[in-house]
Amino acid sequence: MKIKTLLPVEQLLDHIRTLSGIGDVSVDQIEKYFESREIKKKGYLQEPNNRAAHNFFIVSGCAQMFYVADKGVNQTVQFAIENWWINDSISFQKERSSEFGIQAIEECQVLMISKHNFDKLLNEFPQLEHYFRLVYQIAYGAAMYRLRYQYEYSKEQHYFNFIHHHPEFAQRVPQYLIASYLGLTPEYVSEIRAKNVS
Amino acid sequence: MKIKTLLPVEQLLDHIRTLSGIGDVSVDQIEKYFESREIKKKGYLQEPNNRAAHNFFIVSGCAQMFYVADKGVNQTVQFAIENWWINDSISFQKERSSEFGIQAIEECQVLMISKHNFDKLLNEFPQLEHYFRLVYQIAYGAAMYRLRYQYEYSKEQHYFNFIHHHPEFAQRVPQYLIASYLGLTPEYVSEIRAKNVS
Repeated sequence: MKIKTLLPVEQLLDHIRTLSGIGDVSVDQIEKYFESREIKKKGYLQEPNNRAAHNFFIVSGCAQMFYVADKGVNQTVQFAIENWWINDSISFQKERSSEFGIQAIEECQVLMISKHNFDKLLNEFPQLEHYFRLVYQIAYGAAMYRLRYQYEYSKEQHYFNFIHHHPEFAQRVPQYLIASYLGLTPEYVSEIRAKNVS
Repeated sequence: MKIKTLLPVEQLLDHIRTLSGIGDVSVDQIEKYFESREIKKKGYLQEPNNRAAHNFFIVSGCAQMFYVADKGVNQTVQFAIENWWINDSISFQKERSSEFGIQAIEECQVLMISKHNFDKLLNEFPQLEHYFRLVYQIAYGAAMYRLRYQYEYSKEQHYFNFIHHHPEFAQRVPQYLIASYLGLTPEYVSEIRAKNVS
């Protein structure tokens, strides 16, 4: 895959160009703001109940944002794959502790940027505000559609709608995490899958 | 209230200054991009299943974003009061039809801006990208916390948590709309309110 042959910061610049048309920023100019990290499957990009000190750009792999629910069970609230940003974006902005954690579902390569460096980056390259505005505007709009589906669909419709619209997740993410993300039990998902196969 | 004595575009610039520290843009420079509108209670800022042609800044009043659910019932997905932006931000960006409508819950004064003018405004005053990035970054982060509460809380906890954290809505928005926003029936909300008063 072409994506794998790029350096992480080149891949980020590619995404910036594709989404926002900004082409006047180079790897040399911005790489100092980022740290590149490999996180093993099930490892934490951020542990829950810590300061949301970083924003994460997924270079490869798949991660989930979650909180620790009753009985210590992790409840998924968001997934992210290649070219997605993931973090608790309010706690990051306000530099406070987050109730959410972020965990690798597959082995991940990420670019991470601290709040301090994020502010410096955007101060030095204000044209990147356009890119991040689009990232968050679209993410916010998608969250409204997600809330809609959560209200509107039966559990079964919700599951099959998700599988239909996000085959990239359905193939990569374990069933129990998709169930968690949709607010269903793993047993319920097994049941409706079995019913629809037979 | 001081807020009522400002011109709509002055109020927007006040909000821009407060949220993002940007103070080098004047009313004269940006007012041509906006239209000011008064919308009567129950009137539409945007009818459902139309092109999401505008972004709305609420100057005064209160509005809801909703979709038309089964049996023609309006299901609330978002509220907005003074100094909030509201629209279907994906459909607006992609210039396509939106399944959501936007309706005044109280008489509203709004500033509306078309996609064409929004792009021109940000092209002429790129420093405003910083403001809109913050608006959407915070809105997206809040949506993640909202999804969390929807998973985590019992219906009763969900209602009282909302009332506790958003007294400004609880006092202004009719009970049946708060129930809708939380995915509850109005009957259920009446019941738990009665139980907790007695």
